[in-house]
Amino acid sequence: MFFEGSEKKLEVVVGSGMGPLRELDENYWESIVGVAEASILSKISNSFCDAFLLSESSLFVWDDRFTMITCGQTVLANAAIKFLEDQSENAVLSLIYQRKNEFYPRLQRSDFFKDIEQLSSKIDGKAYRFGEPDGHHLYLFHMNKEFQPASTDQTLEILMYNIKGSLREAFVDPQIDTKQIRKLTSLDQLFEGFEINDHAFSPCGYSMNALMDEKYYTVHVTPEEEGAYVSFETNVNAQEQVDSLLNRLTEVFQPQSFDIVSFGRKDGVEIESPKFVRKNFVKEKLRCGYQVYFSHFYEPRNQSGRAVELFSAASREIDQ
Amino acid sequence: MFFEGSEKKLEVVVGSGMGPLRELDENYWESIVGVAEASILSKISNSFCDAFLLSESSLFVWDDRFTMITCGQTVLANAAIKFLEDQSENAVLSLIYQRKNEFYPRLQRSDFFKDIEQLSSKIDGKAYRFGEPDGHHLYLFHMNKEFQPASTDQTLEILMYNIKGSLREAFVDPQIDTKQIRKLTSLDQLFEGFEINDHAFSPCGYSMNALMDEKYYTVHVTPEEEGAYVSFETNVNAQEQVDSLLNRLTEVFQPQSFDIVSFGRKDGVEIESPKFVRKNFVKEKLRCGYQVYFSHFYEPRNQSGRAVELFSAASREIDQ
Repeated sequence: MFFEGSEKKLEVVVGSGMGPLRELDENYWESIVGVAEASILSKISNSFCDAFLLSESSLFVWDDRFTMITCGQTVLANAAIKFLEDQSENAVLSLIYQRKNEFYPRLQRSDFFKDIEQLSSKIDGKAYRFGEPDGHHLYLFHMNKEFQPASTDQTLEILMYNIKGSLREAFVDPQIDTKQIRKLTSLDQLFEGFEINDHAFSPCGYSMNALMDEKYYTVHVTPEEEGAYVSFETNVNAQEQVDSLLNRLTEVFQPQSFDIVSFGRKDGVEIESPKFVRKNFVKEKLRCGYQVYFSHFYEPRNQSGRAVELFSAASREIDQ
Repeated sequence: MFFEGSEKKLEVVVGSGMGPLRELDENYWESIVGVAEASILSKISNSFCDAFLLSESSLFVWDDRFTMITCGQTVLANAAIKFLEDQSENAVLSLIYQRKNEFYPRLQRSDFFKDIEQLSSKIDGKAYRFGEPDGHHLYLFHMNKEFQPASTDQTLEILMYNIKGSLREAFVDPQIDTKQIRKLTSLDQLFEGFEINDHAFSPCGYSMNALMDEKYYTVHVTPEEEGAYVSFETNVNAQEQVDSLLNRLTEVFQPQSFDIVSFGRKDGVEIESPKFVRKNFVKEKLRCGYQVYFSHFYEPRNQSGRAVELFSAASREIDQ
């Protein structure tokens, strides 16, 4: 059984050329999510943001922007194309489309190069790779337009690979529910005062959206042994807490490696980890106004390991 | 322009149940190479071995075994299937099919899991992954039959990724010929006394087969900036010279990382490199008699790097 946890991400900021995005009704967002081949499971809202849990990850909608994160075999570029076709392109101040390296790219419906071909037919853009093509990397496409992000406009992603230990095993128990997961992980208490909406998938997998005012954090767990993966993302200014946040998450999930992606107007997030070694560190100031940091860390091993005997070909199914 | 340098490899050993493999004529090997979607370019021979240069890598045929290495978008599993269908399966003493992690798996015609599905329909086998699914790794399938390799039966692969420097640039010059390449690299002098057969591809790329008695070495260079890759492989007992060989190759090609794969009856190759850090080290004794070592090394960087701006979508072509 295999599920691609690693995500695509779309962030669009709109200007006064169009009405508040939250006035577009849920049917509209259902259609946006639908063209990406996902669906809406549930929603929490406050006066700033609507936070949707999706069949594959999450969608957050504020009046002036939306952030959509999708995993599995979704085609997120289609959502960007639909939005650009539906709305006035001039109203779009910033569009950033990201795609992480995948465990099994051949199972995807498109690759980043097809995606940017599609996006480039609608808007002028630039495309980058952060990191090596044969290692962990982030592909990024952005609309080629100058933009001034607010100083509070920042995001942090902690993407954990090959999680191990007893917690991963607990996560694949088909009986486990959200209450037990919260108790085991305390993921609902990473920051104080957030409203939580979470979902335990069948046969396994877990998603959480957390919301307070305009701030969110979101966690997605793909616990299958092959391609075990956990993503954490927030727009909370986590710069000062990043080391403790990272320690907490890596203690819970015991990844063999993780990537840090940060977006901001100024500095990115630089971390030190006693247990992990930094293999790669890329920073780039994009013309669209964001400073982007990407780094890959791994846990060094002194001893040799064994080869992994693979599940038989016959049992290979796509868990979607 | 993009070409997948990373290779698939098939090694088949036959017993007395069938005649010497070198008595199968060149038309037969052309058909084997053909089903893998490659073709034979040229051949050198001695009393032990026929060494074919292929449109995508190499084929070596001895009386009791053959080793076929193919890159690009070839489908090497088809060659294994055809051989098993043409010859008596009982005559096959050992069959090992390997596949390295690729730069662009989505451009491949199959993946390892499809390959082993196909192979498993013909022979009972076991499949392994050496290394992490999200990092450098080697997939390996072997016929599930006990086999006693001779003590001299060993191979060493040095697979170099993201080669850089002026030599890579020289290699993409469409005017460069084999004579200039030999002069720049001294690849024809890695070991003494070998007969050399090499080919410079258009618009770029280079392959070399070297033969002395039953021993070979072979080098394949994919110099395109995206996915720049060089493979070296030999059945020479290189254990004592591996450090100097590695230094020589990494000085010539300046890779950012490399993998070492070794097969033997007893010990594998353990190396120390002052300039590179070992990230992964996997060893496994296979039921088919070989001890296999896999390790990944990378050049650490103290400073942050920049993101790589990608060639525009429009210019993306498959160089094949």
